[in-house]
Amino acid sequence: MPKKSERTRQRIVEAANRLFYHKGYNQTSFSDVVMAAGVPRGNIYYYFRTKDEILEASIKYRTERIRQMLDNWSSKYRTPIERLHRFIDILSDSADAIMRYGCPMGTLNTELGKNQDGLQAQAETLFKVFENWLSDQFAELGYAGRASELALRLMSQGQGISVMAHVHNDPGLLRREKEHLGHWLAQLAEGNDACA
Amino acid sequence: MPKKSERTRQRIVEAANRLFYHKGYNQTSFSDVVMAAGVPRGNIYYYFRTKDEILEASIKYRTERIRQMLDNWSSKYRTPIERLHRFIDILSDSADAIMRYGCPMGTLNTELGKNQDGLQAQAETLFKVFENWLSDQFAELGYAGRASELALRLMSQGQGISVMAHVHNDPGLLRREKEHLGHWLAQLAEGNDACA
Repeated sequence: MPKKSERTRQRIVEAANRLFYHKGYNQTSFSDVVMAAGVPRGNIYYYFRTKDEILEASIKYRTERIRQMLDNWSSKYRTPIERLHRFIDILSDSADAIMRYGCPMGTLNTELGKNQDGLQAQAETLFKVFENWLSDQFAELGYAGRASELALRLMSQGQGISVMAHVHNDPGLLRREKEHLGHWLAQLAEGNDACA
Repeated sequence: MPKKSERTRQRIVEAANRLFYHKGYNQTSFSDVVMAAGVPRGNIYYYFRTKDEILEASIKYRTERIRQMLDNWSSKYRTPIERLHRFIDILSDSADAIMRYGCPMGTLNTELGKNQDGLQAQAETLFKVFENWLSDQFAELGYAGRASELALRLMSQGQGISVMAHVHNDPGLLRREKEHLGHWLAQLAEGNDACA
């Protein structure tokens, strides 16, 4: 029953994603995932033997979802500056979640980055998918020589804003910093790289 | 034997600080702290009954250490711009630790901020001590009307750079972003707030 198996596997991955985000990877137990997925424990072992395997599947699933989202944005928004603005809109679209749980990619990576290098190396791909796409946008905007640098700078800004909003639970900070970031992008789009 | 007790208590707190930073708060057990402190378990209970109590003491100790450091900087560096540059020097002084373990304050707060609001409220004070001092520097620099906003923006930049350096283990990124931040401060010191 291949269709049903894929659906069950997906249910486990999605339940795990939610728990990893809301509680942290290490604070989530295999049993937590079993219960949240609503799949009998014996059935889960058919798909995943350990929590690490669930994390690996979770990261692959999220990486694919990010790629699809970025492809959609590339189609829907015809200019690089519109795409870059759409990227920073994540900060307002996900404001409540960011203040409550932090950035899903950032917090996962910094948690694993303490003492779980192998797992963090997998989680790092979440950042790289975004960074490659952002780099393409900056290149198309006219900054081909510094595209990667600007992409990393924009990611860095977004990560800092996410941390601050999470630490202080401050929606005003989130709005203000997102607006400031928007001005930075607008200047670059006008060919003004004084603040780049 | 008051002096000896204070030394023992301090040993426990310092051992705990190191573990919380290197492994994370939740990944550190009470037993880990007992072993690292080299104090018999029975003796530890004389000072701390739970890991939460050790965290509370750890945060109070770190808060006091930060205050002393900032007071020293305020004495040693006579102008606000020198003090602000000294602040961002943390990014180079602690480069190896940041790449390996992330920012000690940021990672502690984002870990606790998932599901341990009471503990995160205590850890938030680490940020506030820095932010108040940074705000004073920006006010003295001539930006009294926006001092708090600029302080939070600078903290945000530092946090983002720390996350990116940690995620990518990239010393070049750390150097480049710190240099960029230095330019931002230098512009502000010259009265140029175009990028503020």
